[in-house]
Amino acid sequence: MDGKLRAAIVGSTGYGGVELIRLLQSHPNVEITSVISSSSAGALIEEGFPHLTEILENNVLDGVDAAEIAGKADVVFTATPSGVSAKLVPQLLEAGLKVVDLSGDFRLRDGAEYEQWYKHTAPEDIYLQQAVYGERVAGVDFISNPGCYPTATLLGLVPAIEAGWIKPESIIVDAKSGVSGAGRGTSLTVHYAEINENFKAYKINKHQHIPEIEQTLTDIAGEKVTITFTTHLAPMTRGIMATIYAGMNDQYNEQDFVELYRKYYTGRPFVRIRNAGVFPATKEVSGSNYCDIGFATDVRTGRVTIVSVIDNVVKGAAGQAIQNLNLMMGWEETLGLGYTPVYP
Amino acid sequence: MDGKLRAAIVGSTGYGGVELIRLLQSHPNVEITSVISSSSAGALIEEGFPHLTEILENNVLDGVDAAEIAGKADVVFTATPSGVSAKLVPQLLEAGLKVVDLSGDFRLRDGAEYEQWYKHTAPEDIYLQQAVYGERVAGVDFISNPGCYPTATLLGLVPAIEAGWIKPESIIVDAKSGVSGAGRGTSLTVHYAEINENFKAYKINKHQHIPEIEQTLTDIAGEKVTITFTTHLAPMTRGIMATIYAGMNDQYNEQDFVELYRKYYTGRPFVRIRNAGVFPATKEVSGSNYCDIGFATDVRTGRVTIVSVIDNVVKGAAGQAIQNLNLMMGWEETLGLGYTPVYP
Amino acid sequence: MDGKLRAAIVGSTGYGGVELIRLLQSHPNVEITSVISSSSAGALIEEGFPHLTEILENNVLDGVDAAEIAGKADVVFTATPSGVSAKLVPQLLEAGLKVVDLSGDFRLRDGAEYEQWYKHTAPEDIYLQQAVYGERVAGVDFISNPGCYPTATLLGLVPAIEAGWIKPESIIVDAKSGVSGAGRGTSLTVHYAEINENFKAYKINKHQHIPEIEQTLTDIAGEKVTITFTTHLAPMTRGIMATIYAGMNDQYNEQDFVELYRKYYTGRPFVRIRNAGVFPATKEVSGSNYCDIGFATDVRTGRVTIVSVIDNVVKGAAGQAIQNLNLMMGWEETLGLGYTPVYP
Amino acid sequence: MDGKLRAAIVGSTGYGGVELIRLLQSHPNVEITSVISSSSAGALIEEGFPHLTEILENNVLDGVDAAEIAGKADVVFTATPSGVSAKLVPQLLEAGLKVVDLSGDFRLRDGAEYEQWYKHTAPEDIYLQQAVYGERVAGVDFISNPGCYPTATLLGLVPAIEAGWIKPESIIVDAKSGVSGAGRGTSLTVHYAEINENFKAYKINKHQHIPEIEQTLTDIAGEKVTITFTTHLAPMTRGIMATIYAGMNDQYNEQDFVELYRKYYTGRPFVRIRNAGVFPATKEVSGSNYCDIGFATDVRTGRVTIVSVIDNVVKGAAGQAIQNLNLMMGWEETLGLGYTPVYP
Repeated sequence: MDGKLRAAIVGSTGYGGVELIRLLQSHPNVEITSVISSSSAGALIEEGFPHLTEILENNVLDGVDAAEIAGKADVVFTATPSGVSAKLVPQLLEAGLKVVDLSGDFRLRDGAEYEQWYKHTAPEDIYLQQAVYGERVAGVDFISNPGCYPTATLLGLVPAIEAGWIKPESIIVDAKSGVSGAGRGTSLTVHYAEINENFKAYKINKHQHIPEIEQTLTDIAGEKVTITFTTHLAPMTRGIMATIYAGMNDQYNEQDFVELYRKYYTGRPFVRIRNAGVFPATKEVSGSNYCDIGFATDVRTGRVTIVSVIDNVVKGAAGQAIQNLNLMMGWEETLGLGYTPVYP
Repeated sequence: MDGKLRAAIVGSTGYGGVELIRLLQSHPNVEITSVISSSSAGALIEEGFPHLTEILENNVLDGVDAAEIAGKADVVFTATPSGVSAKLVPQLLEAGLKVVDLSGDFRLRDGAEYEQWYKHTAPEDIYLQQAVYGERVAGVDFISNPGCYPTATLLGLVPAIEAGWIKPESIIVDAKSGVSGAGRGTSLTVHYAEINENFKAYKINKHQHIPEIEQTLTDIAGEKVTITFTTHLAPMTRGIMATIYAGMNDQYNEQDFVELYRKYYTGRPFVRIRNAGVFPATKEVSGSNYCDIGFATDVRTGRVTIVSVIDNVVKGAAGQAIQNLNLMMGWEETLGLGYTPVYP
Repeated sequence: MDGKLRAAIVGSTGYGGVELIRLLQSHPNVEITSVISSSSAGALIEEGFPHLTEILENNVLDGVDAAEIAGKADVVFTATPSGVSAKLVPQLLEAGLKVVDLSGDFRLRDGAEYEQWYKHTAPEDIYLQQAVYGERVAGVDFISNPGCYPTATLLGLVPAIEAGWIKPESIIVDAKSGVSGAGRGTSLTVHYAEINENFKAYKINKHQHIPEIEQTLTDIAGEKVTITFTTHLAPMTRGIMATIYAGMNDQYNEQDFVELYRKYYTGRPFVRIRNAGVFPATKEVSGSNYCDIGFATDVRTGRVTIVSVIDNVVKGAAGQAIQNLNLMMGWEETLGLGYTPVYP
Repeated sequence: MDGKLRAAIVGSTGYGGVELIRLLQSHPNVEITSVISSSSAGALIEEGFPHLTEILENNVLDGVDAAEIAGKADVVFTATPSGVSAKLVPQLLEAGLKVVDLSGDFRLRDGAEYEQWYKHTAPEDIYLQQAVYGERVAGVDFISNPGCYPTATLLGLVPAIEAGWIKPESIIVDAKSGVSGAGRGTSLTVHYAEINENFKAYKINKHQHIPEIEQTLTDIAGEKVTITFTTHLAPMTRGIMATIYAGMNDQYNEQDFVELYRKYYTGRPFVRIRNAGVFPATKEVSGSNYCDIGFATDVRTGRVTIVSVIDNVVKGAAGQAIQNLNLMMGWEETLGLGYTPVYP
């Protein structure tokens, strides 16, 4: 022990888990002391992920045991499927661990709404209320990390909503995701031959990230916000683009939006606003924690189109989780996250 | 000569041109008598397109000469960049040839609007009025083939507009295209390393296909229709998906839309309507002349989401051009177009 | 019934099966009377393969029952996993059906060798001897369709071996395949995120197609031929390239090889020999039944490099099966196979 | 100035240049003081590469001027096309700068051989002799960084050659590269629609990296080594796999090779040897400086197959250049190169 915060990762054999491993290699204040997998305990992590050969000092996967984790770690990242964290996180918290949960189980304050959209039993209300949803505050013990679609969507919408520039009831989000968002489980849906050279829509208006987005927009707008939200699978591994449409309350132009957003995100190192008339592409943030945003306003229709892109595995999951850990610990927000996008 | 209609293809070294060659190989009533390229006249077509080795009887590329074409062909497909057909087509018509134009130069009835969106000098008005825009009528001599984005969009919108089910002023089209739509010209935009694992928005509200869509929607709605229209480049070669959003005038459900569209498209062999709750993917029409359409209605927002997919090179260009030739000649609409989608 | 040959397809929900369906749509002498799937009997084929919507007249999947098949069909294509045909084909033959088997179970004349490489129980010897391995003869009842890798490899090697131009003991084949060759079963191996932007070697010197290639080369060379054979997965859906290396017995140049092969393949409509110094790419045969071949000779090392490409699903499976049916029936070899490659 | 080594990058708008920028962001001892582009001087680097927005302190591209560079930098990376460095590097050296050249112009000791393979005028012999070819020595001023194909090939071959285990005259290298290796220049060769779903062979036995490989192998073997070398373009952006074939001098098995190589590469942190029977895939090193190697030996043919993979832009260019700078400066070899591969 050299004074670093000791971190355990539950779900180390999922894409979110291995990305946490990748990113934490360069974190100056954190060391990984346990990589955990319910399905592969006892195996070496490089058997399933040869890219991790010779990376970790301790590369044997542990099983899921709250007491054992508490003996090895100070903080736990739970990168588990939804429904699993609901049961596991309370045990971890009771064992005195700090928790950053990536599962989605604690993002909705209303358990009934969780059950409606997630089709799992909700966690106890006390935990739903205890979870801090990606807030930028220090000193908390339990953070619920925002979802990938909500991250791209909310970063693209919040400043305009808060400024009262757009009509909340007019919001339509057309989102596109790379396949890594579906996780590493095998199914026909992720078969290469079914995805390659193919573009698919799925779960239209039914994705479980919709109430998460609406919860935050409602908080900010001060009125109930209901959106139209479409998810698509694009033939690529990483990246999310949210193309967002909304009616404007006045004749703002692109430069107006650029200035509004640049002002709003001053001091927020991971949001980059493109110049007027320039739109970001997903690859321009690949492998990094950035969210890039651009605008098109249209006098013909009075609508604005907002294009927001992230790397779903970094800013949409592991990177933001580390960023939240940094904030929670009172550290510099950018610690361990200085990754320049990988291009091309 | 065995009584077949003799066809010439101007622009045989573009993607639309080679697709016309591919599809016409199986047309019982048409023979290709001249493949034409302004840039490669005198060369063998298989030098640039080895996949065409041993396919054509006459595989030497001709130059562009209206008189020469008139000596060899009865009908000409002009698969040229916009701005080129504007000058060439009048010569071809005067030489007594039938013309199916794929360039876009004759799609807008209003020359001024053409010049605003296309940034080229408009064809003479007499030709703009003479061009028949993808109408389903026999006996005409000059057809202006609809664009790729308009085809996917209009087939997805027209029945609902005509039925008065949706609000024209609420229409938002989020369209995604494969890279072949950009043509075979070289540029950084189509560089593999810039496109692969990348998803891009471009020409938001500025694409030259917008007035083409609005012209038809306005005709049908009986009022001026203005839409929000976004184009994206997806990392794939073929395929267009138009995800269309509109406010509904009543509480229609998905089954209502399925029935409306199936009725509307009865006897239209190339449109396939998916069952309620099922959305088509671009690969399900790849290599074929089909347009597949699915619906999601949302009681929460009162909107319908319509998903319409085509193969941009077939239904969005060469296939529809042949279909239009068939109609123009009074032949069975499906002649030479019985291609089952290539899957996977 | 209009006098067409009635065909049943066992394994209609695999990639080979749906490709047989696609290709047979344009066959003038064959009609599909039964699409068969052991796992999905009773379902509509378009539920799993929406691209086949409205394509087949009878689109309900049948179960596997030899007697039932015999009541509906004259010929059966068995596009089944290896091990399944071994048991099924004898029943089909006894029921009086003609069979074209795509499984691999009947390609090796030696049952012991089959069991060594395939790890299944071999079919009875009487059937192994009865199966005709892709020979170009009429009047037989049971054809064992060559494998995808053997097709690309043998078409590239046989003329040079037969001419005595290359040293059999020096042959090294470096083969690359698209992912469709792995079939539609789900596994981590075919997960999009694991394949995309990835190039993998697998089963080096252990692929079950090795003895099939060696059996034919040995027949032709008149001596036991043993090869080095590597298989790779390329991030693409369709296509096989075999890059073949061999020591030459004399100082032949590229033009010599071009002439030797063009002469050998005269009258063989599906093999196209590139000019000296030009190499075929997989996309140049995509969707078609062609095998394209090119050559590089090297005076520095005395070796020739032969590049042979096919579409693994067409020439490597369904297309060649139809070609073999045509030959078996005494029909024109090209019937129903006039597909121009789909490009781009 | 805070005591860091000041680095300039000539060719900052090529893929090698921007990768140097990405990697150097995390180098503790180096700061980038000038990004240089002959074609885009005066522009902001993020105009062409938006992923670099807000990354560099000084993001205005400089022109190419040796004196100006000498005023700003201590070391220059020349990531230029071949033929350009030949003229530029002598000026940089004379201006007192340290140089790491990525162009290939100084890799061959024999100017005549350079001119034969590269088709450019060779640099003066004095510079060819002065250039240190990727040697692991401190204190030199001018390093010629090895090529991408040679790096993958030589790391896979050198231990076996040095041990005398394989026959030099039997070596055949079947190499596959992602498209970024072709650079950012536009041409039909790199058009997305021509590359996607396509696998191509090119420059068989004619690639300019052949003499570079042979020069080193000859040095090590102590006899003139001539190889067969094939290059292929795979439909992916990054990655090289060299599949290497050679006849063995004895009956070594896979474990023998694993042990030989692990011993040889002890203390070499960027080479990882897979266990017997396991082969590396290109994505397992993506974004990192690793070279991963695996083996298959075959008693049937007496040959070994060696699979060696790198990220062509990192280990094959920018990463190795930084590694060589580290060695040249007497620093820890791994400084600034601790990138875990990006997966998936």
